[in-house]
Parts: sequence; C-alpha cells; structure tokens
Amino acid sequence: MRGIVRWLCALALLLGAATPAVAEDGYDLWLRYRPLPAAVAARTRHSVGAIRTEESDPRIRSAKRELQRALSGLLGGQGLPGQGTILLGTPTGSSAIRALHLDLSGLGDEGYRIRSLTIAGRPTIAVAANGGAGVLYGAFALIRRLQLGQPLDHLAIADAPKLKLRVLDHWDNLDRFVERGYAGQSIWDWWKLPAYRDPRYTDYARANASIGINGAVLNNVNAAPDILTAPYIAKAAAIADMLGPWGMKVYLSVRFSSPVEIGGLKTADPDDPAVQAWWRAKADEVYHAIPDFGGFLVKANSEGQPGPRDYGRSQADGANLLAAALAPHHGVVMWRAFVYADTDPEDRAKQAYTAFKPLDGHFADNVLVQVKNGPIDFQPREPFHPLFGAMPKTALMPEFQITKEYLGFATHLVYLGPLFEETLRSDTFARGPGSTVAKVVDGSLDGHRLTGMAGVANIGSDRDWSGSVFNQANWYAFGRLAWNPEASSREIAVEWIGQTFTTDPRFVGPVATMMMGSREAAVDYMTPLGLAHMMGTGHHYGPAPWVSDLARPEWNPVYYHRADANGIGFDRTASGSDAVAQYAPPVAARFADLKTVGDRYLLWFHHVPWSYRMADGTTVWDSLVHHYDHGVAEVAAMQGQWAKLAPYVDAERFDQTNAFLAIQRREAQWWRDACIAYFQSLNHLPLPAGAKPPPLPLADYEAMRFPYAPGAPH
Amino acid sequence: MRGIVRWLCALALLLGAATPAVAEDGYDLWLRYRPLPAAVAARTRHSVGAIRTEESDPRIRSAKRELQRALSGLLGGQGLPGQGTILLGTPTGSSAIRALHLDLSGLGDEGYRIRSLTIAGRPTIAVAANGGAGVLYGAFALIRRLQLGQPLDHLAIADAPKLKLRVLDHWDNLDRFVERGYAGQSIWDWWKLPAYRDPRYTDYARANASIGINGAVLNNVNAAPDILTAPYIAKAAAIADMLGPWGMKVYLSVRFSSPVEIGGLKTADPDDPAVQAWWRAKADEVYHAIPDFGGFLVKANSEGQPGPRDYGRSQADGANLLAAALAPHHGVVMWRAFVYADTDPEDRAKQAYTAFKPLDGHFADNVLVQVKNGPIDFQPREPFHPLFGAMPKTALMPEFQITKEYLGFATHLVYLGPLFEETLRSDTFARGPGSTVAKVVDGSLDGHRLTGMAGVANIGSDRDWSGSVFNQANWYAFGRLAWNPEASSREIAVEWIGQTFTTDPRFVGPVATMMMGSREAAVDYMTPLGLAHMMGTGHHYGPAPWVSDLARPEWNPVYYHRADANGIGFDRTASGSDAVAQYAPPVAARFADLKTVGDRYLLWFHHVPWSYRMADGTTVWDSLVHHYDHGVAEVAAMQGQWAKLAPYVDAERFDQTNAFLAIQRREAQWWRDACIAYFQSLNHLPLPAGAKPPPLPLADYEAMRFPYAPGAPH
Repeated sequence: MRGIVRWLCALALLLGAATPAVAEDGYDLWLRYRPLPAAVAARTRHSVGAIRTEESDPRIRSAKRELQRALSGLLGGQGLPGQGTILLGTPTGSSAIRALHLDLSGLGDEGYRIRSLTIAGRPTIAVAANGGAGVLYGAFALIRRLQLGQPLDHLAIADAPKLKLRVLDHWDNLDRFVERGYAGQSIWDWWKLPAYRDPRYTDYARANASIGINGAVLNNVNAAPDILTAPYIAKAAAIADMLGPWGMKVYLSVRFSSPVEIGGLKTADPDDPAVQAWWRAKADEVYHAIPDFGGFLVKANSEGQPGPRDYGRSQADGANLLAAALAPHHGVVMWRAFVYADTDPEDRAKQAYTAFKPLDGHFADNVLVQVKNGPIDFQPREPFHPLFGAMPKTALMPEFQITKEYLGFATHLVYLGPLFEETLRSDTFARGPGSTVAKVVDGSLDGHRLTGMAGVANIGSDRDWSGSVFNQANWYAFGRLAWNPEASSREIAVEWIGQTFTTDPRFVGPVATMMMGSREAAVDYMTPLGLAHMMGTGHHYGPAPWVSDLARPEWNPVYYHRADANGIGFDRTASGSDAVAQYAPPVAARFADLKTVGDRYLLWFHHVPWSYRMADGTTVWDSLVHHYDHGVAEVAAMQGQWAKLAPYVDAERFDQTNAFLAIQRREAQWWRDACIAYFQSLNHLPLPAGAKPPPLPLADYEAMRFPYAPGAPH
Repeated sequence: MRGIVRWLCALALLLGAATPAVAEDGYDLWLRYRPLPAAVAARTRHSVGAIRTEESDPRIRSAKRELQRALSGLLGGQGLPGQGTILLGTPTGSSAIRALHLDLSGLGDEGYRIRSLTIAGRPTIAVAANGGAGVLYGAFALIRRLQLGQPLDHLAIADAPKLKLRVLDHWDNLDRFVERGYAGQSIWDWWKLPAYRDPRYTDYARANASIGINGAVLNNVNAAPDILTAPYIAKAAAIADMLGPWGMKVYLSVRFSSPVEIGGLKTADPDDPAVQAWWRAKADEVYHAIPDFGGFLVKANSEGQPGPRDYGRSQADGANLLAAALAPHHGVVMWRAFVYADTDPEDRAKQAYTAFKPLDGHFADNVLVQVKNGPIDFQPREPFHPLFGAMPKTALMPEFQITKEYLGFATHLVYLGPLFEETLRSDTFARGPGSTVAKVVDGSLDGHRLTGMAGVANIGSDRDWSGSVFNQANWYAFGRLAWNPEASSREIAVEWIGQTFTTDPRFVGPVATMMMGSREAAVDYMTPLGLAHMMGTGHHYGPAPWVSDLARPEWNPVYYHRADANGIGFDRTASGSDAVAQYAPPVAARFADLKTVGDRYLLWFHHVPWSYRMADGTTVWDSLVHHYDHGVAEVAAMQGQWAKLAPYVDAERFDQTNAFLAIQRREAQWWRDACIAYFQSLNHLPLPAGAKPPPLPLADYEAMRFPYAPGAPH
C-alpha cells in the first residue's frame, strides 16, 4: 500500500506539482530533496537502492535515515527500485566494508571514501570511513551529488576535513535575544528546555552535518554566568543529546568571573587554588551531564567583559586556567584575541597583536586563540589579521561573521564566500611566499594538529533560519570553507544554488554572477577604497561617518577615516601608527607603499590628500564617488537580473528576494548619498561629472534615528 | 492536466498520506482543509461546485478564494465536480442574489444568510449579505460546516454578530518584543515594513476573519510615541492594506503625551487648543494613509502611563479629546478603565469603579470604555467587574486576556472558553435579573449601538502562532464569543477540535472534557477558593504568595490573600473594603453573605478563620489543600487521557502536547507545594489526612529565581 501511495504522489509531482504548497518558505534550506528531472531520476534510480549498514553508531544511523529521506524525495517518493545497494560503514564495524579493503588511511575520523563497485553482480556504492562521523559526511557528499544530478557511476571520491573544529558561534542570550541577530529569536528555546525538545534542533543539526560543521557554541560570548548553573547545564545537555547523532558537539561561552558570580568565591584570579578547583569541578559537572562536550569559548578583558587582566594575569594565564580544567576530559578552550583596551591610545588595529604576539608559546596544548579575520571588527573589507602567521607556536582559529552586522542586516543580498576566501587566500609570507592564512589555519604551516574555524551564526527562529534565502548561502559557504579553506567560493555558490533552487544553468549562471559580485558591491556602497567602521552607533545600521562625539576615540567613525578639508585615510605606515610593521616584511612593504598597496586597502593604510591621483589618473575624491555610484549601480543590476528569473523560482522566495533587493537598493543609495554629503562638507569639492548630488542636506542624514533597529544589545 | 494531478494527489492522500510531511506544525490553525473522510467527501461533492460571484468587493473576492482553497483541500485537491453552485454576493451588487429576494433585514453589514436552493435545476448554495464582510463571514460559516462534515442540503442559516467591534489587542512593542507574549516575537516585522509584506499577515487575517474578528490593535497599550510618526504610520498602512480584504480594520495604541514627545508641544493638556489641533491633524494624517483606520486604544494614568490627570483633567476629558479628532473620520476611541493610582490606599479592586462610575454620560459617542473582565487583572478567577451594569450611558467593551500571563504561559493546557463564558453569563442585576454582562456588552440592556469586545492576543512569530496547539483554542473561542457572547464554550471547543484535529468522536469527546475542565484545574492548583494575585513578581511565573516587600501594598500577594496565623482572605464586605457595594444590591448581598457567596469567591470577598467550616463541613484550610491536590490530580488525569489519544493525532502535535502536559504537571505540583508550605508556615496546622507534605522547605521555594522568564517587560 505504501508503495502505491508513494508512486501516486511521485506521479502527481512529476506531472506538475499542483498542490498549493509549492511556495517554499526556505525552511528546508539546501536539503530540499524535491523530485529530480525525469531523465536524471531514471539514471539515478539505476545506481541506488537498498541502504545497508551493520552498525548502530548513531551517526551511521543518521546517515542511513538521511539517505532514505533524500532518495525518497529526489526520486519522487517511489519505493526504491533495488537494483543497486548503498553500503555504509567502517571497517571495524562492518564486515562488508572490511571485505572491500579500501584504503582509508589519511582520512582521519571524519573523512570518507565513496566508491562505485559491483558486488555479487549488483551495482554498489560504498561509503566507507574510519568512524561514524566520516560515514555521515560521506552520505551527505553522496546526497549533494544526487541533488545536483551528478552521475553516480565510477565514483572514486575521497575527502576529509582540513580543520578539526568547524564551529558556529551563536551570540544568543538566555532570554532568546540574539546579539547582532537579524533572523528572529534564538532557535534555543531555553525556557522550555530540557522538558521540551523542539524537533527543529534536529533539522539544525542535519543542516550543519550536511556541510561538515561539527560544533556549536550555544550562547553569546558576552556570556551570562547562569549558563554554568545546573538548570542550564541540563538544558544544554538536552541540546547536545539531539546534536550528537549528527556529529556535532556542544560548546558553551563562559564568563571569566563565574567563580565569583555563581560559585560564591571572592575572586576569579587564575592563580587562586580555589578558583582552579572551582573550574575543575565545574568541568567535571558539565562532562558528567554532556559526555561529548566540546569546551569553552571565552571573551575576556574585551568590551567590558571580566578577564585575567583584572587580577594582573595574562590572557594566557586565563586561558590555561580553563584549559587545565577541561584537559582531563579532552575539552578545548577557544580564547578570543578580540581585545582592545579602554584606555590604550594605540591604534585599535594593532592592539590584539600587541597583546597576544608576546604570548606565543605560552598557551596550553588544548587552547585555540580565536582571531577575527581582520584587525578591527568584521568590516565589509579588512586586510587579514596580522596575528595570522605571527604566532607559530599557537593554534589560531579564525573567526568570521556570518551574520551581517556590518553588511546590511537581513535584507541585503551579500554573499560572503568571497570575503571568507579573500582572507583565507591572503599570503602572510610568515614562512615565505605561499604562507596563506589557510595554511596557517589548517595547521600545515606550523605543524599544528589542533585546528579550527569559527563563524558567528546567522541563525534564528525565522522560518527560513537566516532572515532571507540568500543569507543561507553564507551559512553554507562558511561550512564548506571550514571543511576546506582552499575551496572556491564560486564553486560553493554554484553548489548551493543547485541545491537551494535549481540546477538549470539559465538560473545558476546569472545567480552565481550576482552572488559573486554582491560583496564587492556592498564594499563600494558602504566602505570603498579601504574605509571602515562608518556605520551608525550602537545598532550599526546605515551610514554615520560624521560621528565624532563618542567617549572613546576608536568608537567614532572619524577615528577610522580621518577625513578633513585636506585629505582622507588612516596613516598606518611608519609615519603614522605603523600597523604595517605587524605584518611580515614583504607584506608590510606592499601595504606601506602607495604604489603597491592597491585601491582595496588604500585608505586603510594611508592618509592622502583629496587631490591624490589613483593609478587610473582620477583623484581619490572622484574615485570615491565613482565607487559609491558603482555599488549602487550593482544593486540596481542585481534587481534587474533577479526580475528576469521569476520563471525559475517559486513565488514566495521570488517575491521576498524582490522586496529585499528593493530595500537594499534604497539603502545603498542612502549610504552613498549620506557619505558623499558628509565628505563633501569637509572638502567642498565638486562632484565628478555625471555624479548626482545627494538629494538631502547633510543635516537630514545626520538627524536620522533608528531606535528599534534589530540586533543591538540592550 | 491539472485535473489529473489533483486526482492523483487526492487518491494518494486518501490511500493513507504517506509523505513525510504528515507531521503538522500547527501553522494551519483550524483552517487545515485536509481531505474529508471518503463518505463525507462524496456527499459534499454533490452539493458544491463552481463558485459564482459578480462583485469585485475585496472581501467577496477573499471569500471566493478561501472557498476554493477549502474545497480543493477538503475534497482532496480534485477539480470541483460542478453539479452544484455556490453563489456569493449582495443584493446591490449581484443580480443573481437580488433575484432570490432573500430577507436580509436585521443582518446589518456583517451578517449573512445561507440557503440551499435549486436554480435552473442545479443545486445551489446561496451566501448572501448586505455587504462584503457579511459574504466573507458567510463563506467561513459554510467552510466550518464543510470541515465538520455537516450536511449541506436544506441549509437555512442566518447569523449576524452581536457586537460591532471584535478586536485583538497586540501588546507588541516596536522592537518585536511582546509584553506577556509566550509565542515568540511579534508577528509584525516593523523593521522590514512597509517594503516587505510578510505573506503571514494574510494568513493572520484569514484566521481572524474565519472567527469574525474584525479589528487588530497592532501595538502595545504601553505605547511608544513613535507609532504616530510618519514611518510607522506607513508601516501600519501596509498591514492595513493586507488585512482590509479580510474585513479587518487596524487600530493603534497611542501615548497620551504624544503631542509633547513627537509633536514638539509643551503640553498634552486636553484643554489646550494646540493639543486639540495636533490630534486632529494627526488623525487626518493617519486616515490619509489608512482610509479604513479603526481608531485609538489608550492606557492613560495607569501603571506609569501619562494621561489627562497629569493636567487635572478627567479620564472623560482625555478620551473626548481623541474622540473629537477621530469623529470626522468615524473612528473610535477605546479608553481603558484599568486604572489604579500610585498613591490611593483604596482597595485596588474598587478603584476603576470609583474613577469611572461618576463619568457615566460624559464620554463622547465614539468612545468605548474598555473594562477588564474582573476588577483586578486577568486572574485565573475573578468576579465580574463592577463597572458592568454601572455605566448605562457609556459603551462598555470588555477586555479579556487570551495570552496566559497568569495561567501558565505557553505550556499549560488551559482552555479559557469557560472563563470568558463565566464573565459573560454573570448577572449584574443592573436592570433586574437577566441583566447579564453579555447583555450589557451587546448593547441590548442599555440600548447602545456602539459595542465591542477586546482580547489581548496570544499570537507571535512561533510557527504555531500561539505557543501551543491548545492555545489556539483560546484565540478561536475569543473570536466566537465576540461574535456571540451567549455562545457555549463547550460547543466552541467541540467545533475547534473538529477543525483542528479530527471529528472522530473517540477523540472529540475526551478532548472536549479535558479542555472544559482545564481552567478549573488551573484555578485549583494556582488560586483556589477566590484567592488571586499569588504569582511571582514581575515575570508572573510560578507561585510567590510570600512576597510582601514591594513598594506599593497592592503589588504584593500578601495584600490579596491577607493570610496570617488566624485566617485568610480579603474582607470586601461592609466590615472591610466594602467592594461588594459596587455591585447591584442583589449581587452585593449574595457576595457579602458567607452563606451565599459560594466557594469560588469565598476568599475574594471574605476573611475567615482557618477553622471556618465550608458548606461540606471541612475547614477552609483542609478545603484549600484539597483544592490544590485536586488541581494537580486533574492535570495528571489530562496527561493520562492524552496518552491514550495518540492514534488520532500526528506525532508532532501529540509529542509537543505530551511534553507540555509534563511541564504543566510539574508546575502544578510546584504551585501546590509552595503555596501549602507558605500557608502552613503561618497557620502551623496539620495537613488533612492523605495530603502529602511539600517536599522542600518553604525557603527553597522562596529562593527560586527566574531571570529569563519570557514576556516580562524589560
């Protein structure tokens, strides 16, 4: 009976999907499993069939369940034809896999090998690995091929993640507010946990497993001490219980002063034996509740958070305190390098390096220092962080921001793959040419085995998880690049589009082009030519280059652009803050020289007169205006392009993208107009020929207020 | 081709619904439109067919679209067979309706008549009304019959709403926080409005239209002045534009001091001509943007909100100021009577009456005074508010709370139908026996034409809208009772169950029994025998009868229960606060007399010694403990009952309800234990035989803290 039902459903769907549910709300992400085109389905049906496993490892069970779900959807709900077999397992647990004598060396626990074989006359696809996680990732790799309609015969694939920890950082508070979140509330319903386990947690884990993400820091780095109290450990344990079968570990952000706030101690000094004992006991308590717990993430002595400096100890002392408590359980500490002092007059771009570089070699073996991609704070464009390559004895873990705090919140279409790729491909020259950030991060440059990458999640309770369908691509790209930091962001985009929308090249080509250009467009309409930190105060929405009255100099946009009647830009050469000196000499020389720095980082590293001539002969002022105009024009082009793609998308996702592009265009124009109005008020220069004057006086832009902007901490 | 697809889909569904999407997440509410049982579908197919309209009224177009959607779903997606016709329209707009000469007198704009007829040999169902809204409501009445599988032949139905304004009050802030909301964020995504119109707004409007709700106050009564600025008026206009075709008007909560805060005036004094002009201009501006705007809701001089008393003016002066501005546009003012002074030592239960009763006759014609169902604040049980029946010259609009601020938040299964019904059926004796609150409210008692009912919405961004499937029943019941305040809450429950789950009597019967008993259970485990206001401070979660240290006396639970070593209860007779005197003499006499007051209101109106004997001979102390235990036992019984109903419900809704009932049981036990521990600490009496002592010492209950409880204003 079930077979008939499935067949009828399949047939109905093949005939044209007439149910009103055709509109897609984005919940399924890139795991939609809609029926393949008939020809592809026929070919696929030939190669696949019964799914065989001999093992009870929960991740292998997940792999089997997901493959069944995918095949049932992709092949239109039909019963599997049975010609082929998919064989899942490990040599230790499965005699069938063992009998294949596949070479699994070098694949570690999480890598996999997929081979097309003929066994007893039947076509067989073997997905083999050294452990359950590898089988799960192999199954998802096979599903990805299936979704993309790629052939399944003659498969001979081997892959393994280049990084060990591939982690999402949720900046989620315990009241479900998400700091810098633009997709609703936290998906963690702390209030109803642990009694109610939302089935959505499983879908979250499935999505992450499909792109190789193997960890989640559940709560905000600005951590409430409550997270380490018994009720919240029990809540986290319930989540861990649901994520584990999908290869994911749970981590917690902890507050350095927790021993005082919830432990009743008088101090949180790392040298105090009672403090050390408290953390040891707390780690024991956490591991008792969550045996596969991952570890702690800490933001210390940064933006008001407590830390070891409060007791005259170093950042390494603080990290090692927690590392010692976690070590017996094989847990790790992710210790953030994002520090800048309340009182230090040094160029903010230099402070993390100044604080951490001398500590190289002082961190315990189970500490990763988590370094933002650039030296300031997730701006549309920053040069790579000078710590990459500068701490060879320390495991460095880059931190990217997937949520678009500085890149248009939920509504701007900005694909971050190129941003992540730009950092990872940057050459630190730490050990000569080819010492890319990717090679620092994957441990190959300095011989580290503990490696990782963190992404600040863009996930919330919105039905589509990320606030828009296109924001999902940023989650996807982060996962794929954490698996392989040398992957191509364009290939990732193509892969994502094929699974999320359609593999029709008439759609994939134009959309990939839109996505690949979108980040450069955002740089152009927000912070061109190496500008940075020009956004509104607090909420970080919209342009506010004029802000100059905040208490600390480095809180003000004027600190970053340093524009006046004569010129613009931050001199970070030897004549200025000399931040360039924090890079390896070849990099420092390139950045320090106006002839080699290039347009992208010009104003990041140099202060130039408004009359300064760019390589193309235009003045920096004219070039700035051109960049702003180009950014706006690019958004208009995306709008026009998208409008032509209606035939390939369901109405719900088409309309939403349309509406969001209209918002983005209006806001791009606003960024352009407000910034030009401001800079022109300083330099009193005419606009280049053809450029339109801002429609409003500067005072009007300055007067705009946004008291209810989302994501701002309260 | 579409016909074939539909037929195949239908067949597949009839054969057993094998797709993985069978799990229901509650989004569809009571408008699920799943295929009817085969026999019912066959019978139905006979009576329905093409849907005919001649009119372009948007509400009639909505009616047609919804009927098509319902029939397509209920009849399994098949093409309509075409034997029958459904004819929709008004005599003025439709010649076919006009030709039927149906008597539509007395049905007003929103009533409808449904008749089975034979026209030109074809079975026809006519849905006729005097206006588009009536046609829409008639269509939904027909859909309700269809969903419940009721026969469609010989239909001769006429119905019209007894109240004019049937309104949801959203306590939604502009940052999407919902005060006392337990279902996620506000469904209004103010930030993306007006550019992005979430399709969910239409589903919201459909659901409301289906139960006759014709208005929504979009924002919190604790109103931000921003709501009346141009950007927010534009946002509200976009919502109004989506709700209008479903017969719904938009209202806004406004802050009385808006002329100062956003108007730049020095005062908001109602007597100031500039203030009057400001409100007139603002009303003009709102109506220019929203031609069918409903009006303003105001909370003034209440819990810190500004109001006319700040200028020495009366509540009527304040209401009439806004009424004058709205009158030219036929808008109304809903003016809340929920006032209690910061300094007034009078029994809080008396203060609204004291403040408003003398103003009877002083309110403008387009003012409704919005009166909470009871004299305190939405407690599990309160006697009806003494203002009902006491202001014959004033349009009174009851305010119920649908969100369960005091009734277990999202997770407790508490059907509020009986609570609403209890108030509406209460006899005020204002004009002798039979002067029920329902008759006050529907205008019949005192001859009012402007009538209404408000419900504080329990709607949020949660996928299931209301935080649980069973909470949806409270939204449903409110709408149905606002349409007809004399309807039966049990019949409404049965109707809701049939549409939300199944019409199978093996499910409907037990679930209706559970629902009907659930509110009394909550009263028993929270506030039995007329107790009230025993909840935790601020967040209102859990028991805290011991709280006595808050600044104002009436903020403390001890103010309400007045328990000590000798006795318990609030003496509101002549020997006490004499609140009874605010009721009509027969009611006052009944409440004042220990022999007639009854168990339900005993401690609300009387202070009695712990040894006081109830009608059944037990002491009040033993009775109190029995009630607590009974409440807990009732929840346990619901749990047991629900466990048996798995065969009738999809797994997702079954599991969630199961998990929530477990939470409810644990929390019911906690309420019982904590309250008994506290009262026993005062009276030192033994527990009645068989009652178990609380497992923890009182201090442990007192020490519990819930810093992240949802819904508490921050």
